[in-house]
Formats: sequence, C-alpha cells, structure tokens
Amino acid sequence: MVSKRSWWGWGTQDAALSDSEVATLVGRVSALVPEHDFTDHEPPDPASLGVAAPRVVVPAALAGLFSADVEDRLGHSRGKAFRDVARSLVGDVTHVVDLVARPTSEADVIDILEFCTGADIAVIPYGGGSSVVGGVEPRFDGPAVSLDLSRLDQVLEIDTISRAARVQAGVLGPDLEAQLRPAGLTLRHFPQSFEFSSLGGWLATRAGGHFATLYTHIDDLTESIRAVTPVGVTESRRLPGSGAGPSPDRMLLGSEGTLGVITEAWMRLQDRPVFGATATIAFDNWDRAVDATRAVAQAGLYPTNCRLLDPAEALINAGRATTGGILIIAFESADHPIDAWLERALEIVRGHGGEVGSIRRREESTEAGDSSTAWRSSFIRMPYQRDALARRSMVVETFETACTWDRFDAFHDAVTTAAREAVTAVCGAGVVTCRFTHVYPDGPAPYYGIYAPGRWGALVNQWDEIKAAVSQAIIDNGGTITHHHAVGRDHRPWYDRQRPDPFALALRAAKGALDPAGILNPGVLLGSGKAVT
Amino acid sequence: MVSKRSWWGWGTQDAALSDSEVATLVGRVSALVPEHDFTDHEPPDPASLGVAAPRVVVPAALAGLFSADVEDRLGHSRGKAFRDVARSLVGDVTHVVDLVARPTSEADVIDILEFCTGADIAVIPYGGGSSVVGGVEPRFDGPAVSLDLSRLDQVLEIDTISRAARVQAGVLGPDLEAQLRPAGLTLRHFPQSFEFSSLGGWLATRAGGHFATLYTHIDDLTESIRAVTPVGVTESRRLPGSGAGPSPDRMLLGSEGTLGVITEAWMRLQDRPVFGATATIAFDNWDRAVDATRAVAQAGLYPTNCRLLDPAEALINAGRATTGGILIIAFESADHPIDAWLERALEIVRGHGGEVGSIRRREESTEAGDSSTAWRSSFIRMPYQRDALARRSMVVETFETACTWDRFDAFHDAVTTAAREAVTAVCGAGVVTCRFTHVYPDGPAPYYGIYAPGRWGALVNQWDEIKAAVSQAIIDNGGTITHHHAVGRDHRPWYDRQRPDPFALALRAAKGALDPAGILNPGVLLGSGKAVT
Repeated sequence: MVSKRSWWGWGTQDAALSDSEVATLVGRVSALVPEHDFTDHEPPDPASLGVAAPRVVVPAALAGLFSADVEDRLGHSRGKAFRDVARSLVGDVTHVVDLVARPTSEADVIDILEFCTGADIAVIPYGGGSSVVGGVEPRFDGPAVSLDLSRLDQVLEIDTISRAARVQAGVLGPDLEAQLRPAGLTLRHFPQSFEFSSLGGWLATRAGGHFATLYTHIDDLTESIRAVTPVGVTESRRLPGSGAGPSPDRMLLGSEGTLGVITEAWMRLQDRPVFGATATIAFDNWDRAVDATRAVAQAGLYPTNCRLLDPAEALINAGRATTGGILIIAFESADHPIDAWLERALEIVRGHGGEVGSIRRREESTEAGDSSTAWRSSFIRMPYQRDALARRSMVVETFETACTWDRFDAFHDAVTTAAREAVTAVCGAGVVTCRFTHVYPDGPAPYYGIYAPGRWGALVNQWDEIKAAVSQAIIDNGGTITHHHAVGRDHRPWYDRQRPDPFALALRAAKGALDPAGILNPGVLLGSGKAVT
Repeated sequence: MVSKRSWWGWGTQDAALSDSEVATLVGRVSALVPEHDFTDHEPPDPASLGVAAPRVVVPAALAGLFSADVEDRLGHSRGKAFRDVARSLVGDVTHVVDLVARPTSEADVIDILEFCTGADIAVIPYGGGSSVVGGVEPRFDGPAVSLDLSRLDQVLEIDTISRAARVQAGVLGPDLEAQLRPAGLTLRHFPQSFEFSSLGGWLATRAGGHFATLYTHIDDLTESIRAVTPVGVTESRRLPGSGAGPSPDRMLLGSEGTLGVITEAWMRLQDRPVFGATATIAFDNWDRAVDATRAVAQAGLYPTNCRLLDPAEALINAGRATTGGILIIAFESADHPIDAWLERALEIVRGHGGEVGSIRRREESTEAGDSSTAWRSSFIRMPYQRDALARRSMVVETFETACTWDRFDAFHDAVTTAAREAVTAVCGAGVVTCRFTHVYPDGPAPYYGIYAPGRWGALVNQWDEIKAAVSQAIIDNGGTITHHHAVGRDHRPWYDRQRPDPFALALRAAKGALDPAGILNPGVLLGSGKAVT
C-alpha cells in the first residue's frame, strides 16, 4: 500500500508527527519562545475550498493521462516551502492548476506539449513537488497543466563498466537507489528532499546533495540529458568529458522546466562505499572554526562531509553547547581505508584550535552505515516538524547561499544582522542559525535557519518580509540568491539583479527558440507572455 | 629582448630546432619510413606572397590600436595545426585578416566592437593564436579584424584567502604563473600550448590542462567571467558554487569568440605543490593496461597524472619497448605527503598485471620539480619537431576525443582501423599511436598521433582526407569530436552531427541576441550570415 501524499504539507500523511512527537517538539520550542500561542490549526478540507472547475478540455485521445481531482490539483499547485504550507493551511487557493497530467512515456510528453502549445495552456513540469521557491505553482491567470512525471520512474540501463545508468526523470530518490543497489552502484545524491524529489527535478534545479565537497551539485554527476522541447527532442551524447562548444547539458541544468521537459538522463554512479568515518570537532571560537573549515576545504582531501554548525545550530539540531560551533568531518570510500585522509584533516583542525571528540567508524557494508540511511535518520523528520510548527503559528524556514571566503565574515555579519533585525521587527523575537552545507576551496555555502513566533493569519506576510530583507542583504553583499534551492518564482526579484543582463537576453532568446509559444513554466527564471499577477 | 613569433609555425623563431636536433630527429624518423624524401622546404618570404592590401579603414581615434603589417596579418590568419603550417609553408595566403587590433583596455575592446559592428567587419578574438581547429582564421570573404588581446596581460587582484585571482584574458601561461608565484599560488593549468596560449583562449575553448583527473578542463577553475558583447558587458558574480538558473559562465565557456570577447576572469588557484611522486608502470597486455587505468580512475584517488601510452606511443615518445603499454601515475599535494594515495594506486595496477618500475619523488619546493617545468621539459619541443617534419613532407598531426569505458574497446578499434586504412590509402605507410591524456570515472580521453610520409604540395589534402576518415569514425562510434581542442572551423561538419538540434537552435538564438550583426568569429560553432567559402 502506498502512503498518501499530504496535499498541504511535507511527505506522506501517515508520516506526520505523532501526538507524543508533537508534545516533545512544542515543549522544546516553547522554552525558546515562552509567550507564543501554540494553538493547533487543522488543515482545511480540500473539498470545502471552492476550487474552480478546470478551464481545460482535453482531447479524448489524451484524456486518460489527466486528473481533475481537486486534492490532486491542490497538491500540485504549491511546492513545500514554509510559505506554501502556511498558505494552504489557511485555505488560500489562489492559482490552482486546471489539471494534472501523468504521462506514461516520452511519447505522451510529446503529445501533451503539442496539445498545450496549440491550446495556449501553460505546462509546469512536476517531479516530486518539493520546490521551496514557487517552482511548481501556476502564479499567473491563464490555464495550466501540472505535468507530473512520476510514472516515468525506471532505470532503463545500467553500464557497470563505466558506472553509469540511463534513468527516467520521474523516479524519486529511494526508488532510484533501490533499482541501482543490485548492481552495487549508487548515485550518492542525497538532498534533504531525497524521499520526495525526482531525478528530473534535481537536474532542472541544479540540486545539491548532502556531500559537502567535490560532487556537490547534480551537475557534475550528469553524463547526458534527454529532454522534450516544444520544437523537438534533444539528447546529448554520453561523454565523460568534452570541449565541443558550450555544454548542451549545462543549458538544461538549472533551466527549471522553462526550456524543455527532461525525460531521461545518463547519470554517473559510484560503487557503494564500504570504508568511512565521521569525526565531530568542537570549537570555542567561531572565527577559528571558519578558518579550520576553510583549511580543510583547501587541502585537497575532499571529505564527503564537512559541515560547520554555528553555536545556535549546534545547540538546536545537535544538542551540543559550544561557544564556537561544531564541525562534522566525514570520509567515505568504496576502494580504500580513509585513515590517512581523516588523520590529516584532524591534524589541520587541531592546528586551528579544534577539539576532536567522537570518531565514529563505519560498519563495513552494512545498511545501517549507508549514507542514505545516515541521511534519513538525521534529516527525514525536519520538514514534518516544520509542518507541525507552522500549524502552531511558528515561522520556521531556511535560506541558503554561497560566497567566497575573503568576504564571508562581512557577508555573514550583514546577513545575520538583516535576519535578526527583520525577525525582531516582524515577530518580536526569534532565533537565527547558520551552518555550512557545502564548502569549496574558494568559499562556503552558508545555510541559515529562522525560528520565530508568528501570528496566525499573517504567517506568509511575516515570512515574506523577513525573506525580502535577507535576500536583499545576500545580493548586496555579493552572494548568490540560491546555492541549491533554485530560483523558481520566489527568488525572481533578486535573481534578476544577480544575473548578468546580456545572459538574460541570451536565455530569453534561447527560450524563444525552444518554446515559441511560451507555455513552459511561465514566470520562472524569465518574465513571460502570460499575465503574471 | 622578446623573441619574435614565427608567422608560419609554432612558437618563436629562435626556438626552432637546431641543425643537430633536426639531424637527430630525421635520423630517428627515417628509420620508420626509409623511402621518404626528407628534402627541407624553407618557408616563403611573407613579403613575396602578394597579400592584398587591407580593405578596412579605421577611424583616426582608433588607428593607433591597429596594425597592417603583412607578417603580423599572416601570423594572425592561421592557427598552429599541421594543416595551418603546411598551407603557410607553400605560401597559401587565401583569407588573410585585413588588420590586427591590439586593444590596451576593455574600453578599447568596446570601441573596436562598436566600430566593427557599424562597419560590418568580422572580428576574430585572438589570444595566443595556438588554435589547431581553424578557430582564428578568417575563412570567409568579407573584411576581418583579428582582435589580439595580448596587451591585456595583467593579474589585477589576488585574493589569497579564497585562493583566486582576477586576471586579464590576454595573459599567456608563463606570464600568468610568474605573476601568481610571489603569492605562492598557481592556476595549475598546463595545456601543451601553455607557452603560447592565453587565459581567454583557454576559457573560450574549454581547454584541457595536463592534469589527468578531477580538474581537467579550465571550466572547473573558473569562478566568474567578464566579457564584452556587442550589446554590452556581461559579468558573473564571484561564487564558489551556485544553483541560480543555468550557469552564465558555462555559456561563455566553449563559445569560441562567437558570443563575446572575454576580457577578464576570476580564476580559482591552488597552493604550489610541495609533495609529489611519479610512477611508471609497464604492461604486457593492452587490455589489462586499460582495465588498470580504469580501476585507478574509479578509485576516488584523483591522481594528477594518469596517462596511458600504447606500445607505439611508449616507444616513440618515451623510448620504452612494451607489448602492453606504459601507465604514468603521479600525485601532487601542497598539503600532505601523498604516500597513501600512491601506494593504493600501485596496489590497484599491480592487481591488473602492471609492473611498477621507477618511482620518482618530487624535490620539495624546487623549481625543477614544478609541474609547469615538468611539463615544459616533456612537451615544449614537440610542436617544433612537428614543424621541422612538416618542412620535410611528413604528415604529423594529432586528434583527440573521449568516450565511455564500456564502448572504449570497440571505439578504439574502429578509430585506429579508420586511421590506419586512411594513412595507408593516402600515404602508403605510417604509424598511428594512442595515449590517454585524461581519464574520468566514466571514460578516457584518447589522444591519437599520426606519423606518415606525405608528398610535398599535397600535404594539406592528404591530412584532410585522413582527418575526415577518423572524424567520421569518432562520430559514428559515439565519441566527441573534441575533448579539449575545440570546434573552430575544422571540426564543424562533425560537431554539427554531434550537437543536439534543439541546442543548435538555442545557441543560434543566443548569438542573435548578443551579436545581432553577426560579426563575432563567423563560421565558428554556427553558420553565419557571412559568405562561407
């Protein structure tokens, strides 16, 4: 039996927090914000929301691929950001897709695009629906179809010699790994959304996995991409490397459904790791912790994890009290013991004042020691907790970016100051946390968390005000508006400032060539001919 | 005193082979092709070639930036491929640029593009002029200016914290490294053309350095790019990583001067290595040598060198007789001894039947042990030898590609068969060699060499016939027409087959948006409005 997805919140309905989990969570959070009103607000009944009937009539030949079910349509009309959940919880049903299409083959995708092009219906490609940037929402007035690729979920070929697989774009993370496991291979791409995000979604949004260095973005795991555009199917060659003109794949990576519908990709795989160890290092000074992290990132050791938690993050999410933060460093290998790597990394952090605590060795080849499993245990419950808190009027959200090391101190000061000031102005109180999710030789990817007491009925506006303040600070101080959450619709004002103007011209022209009717995900990345409200 | 560049061949005039070097070389080659006529053909006097006067009149305000010198114009009208040298040696001066422009600032570049746009004059960006694919040649009938960026040769800023530098695009390899050395930093990008190729050229052509794994192409060393397009200046943010839409940099990387003129880039640097070792491993079976190389490439060890030479290549260029080939594996680090890395790599190759011979340890911190120096000693003379042999009617050229490991055996058979058949048909005899210049977890980048006795006056046609045969085999068997030599004009017929059609539409539209008059490097990557002969 398949668990039913929540139409308003994260994941599946039966995985929501239990009553006792809620009690524990509320107890913990209320210690931080004792004055807050934790009244629980039940999600509304979808049938009661007065969702308008679909405006789209599908030709009989395609009718079997479409669903007009209200809950289905609602579930496909929002991503899973805090503002999406908060809007759904109050029954805000502005902009609902008219229909949900579930193609069973690439030929179906072609047929659907042809129909929608001819009928001037917007098409929003939909993988797992885990967008946190408004990427799957029909935020415009015309008719819209959500193109749900979940039935294209097969690993079609595995090449064990080159360690690569041809995979349909709609497959979700766990199903993909399950299909690769018998061959002893893994994609090793574990975003926090892993359970409810798809390969096609990862590619279209340049997703980041949970590995901290080297192979961070899905981009580098991509051997070739196949996509349906309104003017034809495009497919790049399977190549380990090429210098033949600008990369065709790099145009689709990050295109967020605006240039074509990714249907398949050849992905680079790895042998499943058997060696590994994770060390936890405490610091009494944040600046030294940052320097230590930078030194490790620049040493050419390429740890699989190199996650720095600031003191607030370490306290809230790791239960550790420090004055300087916690650095988690891990190495994994399918080929060799990683002792030399780990020892050198620990030598570096000790040289920067780090106190090495526990070192956890990986059990060889056991499922319990699997990265995906490790990821699941640490992260899987977070979005469900977020939902439980949103129902209780808490503003709980994250934002993320990247910048170079030389400007990090000033950048971090500016962003956290903007965040704290906005949180205080909007919510009266709140906590701002920071961790590095990824580190590069030339800079970190800081990931910020906000926990603040909101007001029921005003949560969306409250968050939007905070988000505008921090986004402004990010862009003013040289960061990127997103390191791995994508642009979607929510990031557009700041993305438009970040993106070089001539590149915007080039991208608009490319879209005009591939999607002349402008039906693909209007309003994402680029303005569109559709009315944008 | 600056050495004068050769207008017809590689490098500088005074670095050409000495008489005794020529005698040694000819002696060695004549042992392979004893019947060949080694008569030396002197290059013609440029003044005798009847080069037409420039058709372009430059406004007085810009006149100081332009040169109409015949040798200058000839030198800028060809790259450095065998077919370029062979044509120049017989005085073929079809298609010569009208003028050479040498801007001294980005403002000059803007002015020159504006003038040329208004006057419908083609502009060919020119870095070091080392193209081997016809990338800098005005192979069309209209007027053309070669835009030589050599005066934009400064490192403008060095950020030692993030290990990055802002560098002008016209700087050549040795000058770039000289400017970075005082800061203890290096770009560590050493293509064979290093001495006579520029940063801007590397970026525009997606150049490959001499490191065999991980950071192979210049793409991954690029933090941000600044370029002048006919519709404005474009500059991306300095970011260690980003997921904000398709990468603006990846559109310029590989654009080969067709979308804009790269003027500056922030490049990722590394500390200068102090630890290192190189091992040479002999095999008695080629298939096992390939398997061993693949195993090392898939082990997550990331050697700086992992170069497999087939028996012919090992004999000709390393003086080693084997039945299976030679694998050269090297590790380098600025941070830690590399023993654990090397030991595991050698364990892997021994497990595949490799016989580990000499292991050369790096002298710490000495210039003699520097990668750039190592590169110089092994490669710097090759193009000069090629020139000496071209003057003596030998067909000496290379071609390169990449493919996945699963298809390598069939691919290699097909390509070498095509090469040997073509060489035999065209030249009667000859040698085909192969080495892997780069290896990836999912496939190698094979690099082939051809040595065949040609016929004076027919060399270009002879090579073109061989090149067409091997290119056809590469494309028919799933390879890329170029792993790191770029597309230019010579690779167009096969690039056009390799490139997905919708991507061609998108690229053409992007060019139309950035270069509406179509003046930038017409005929490269895309057809052009200019008459193409």
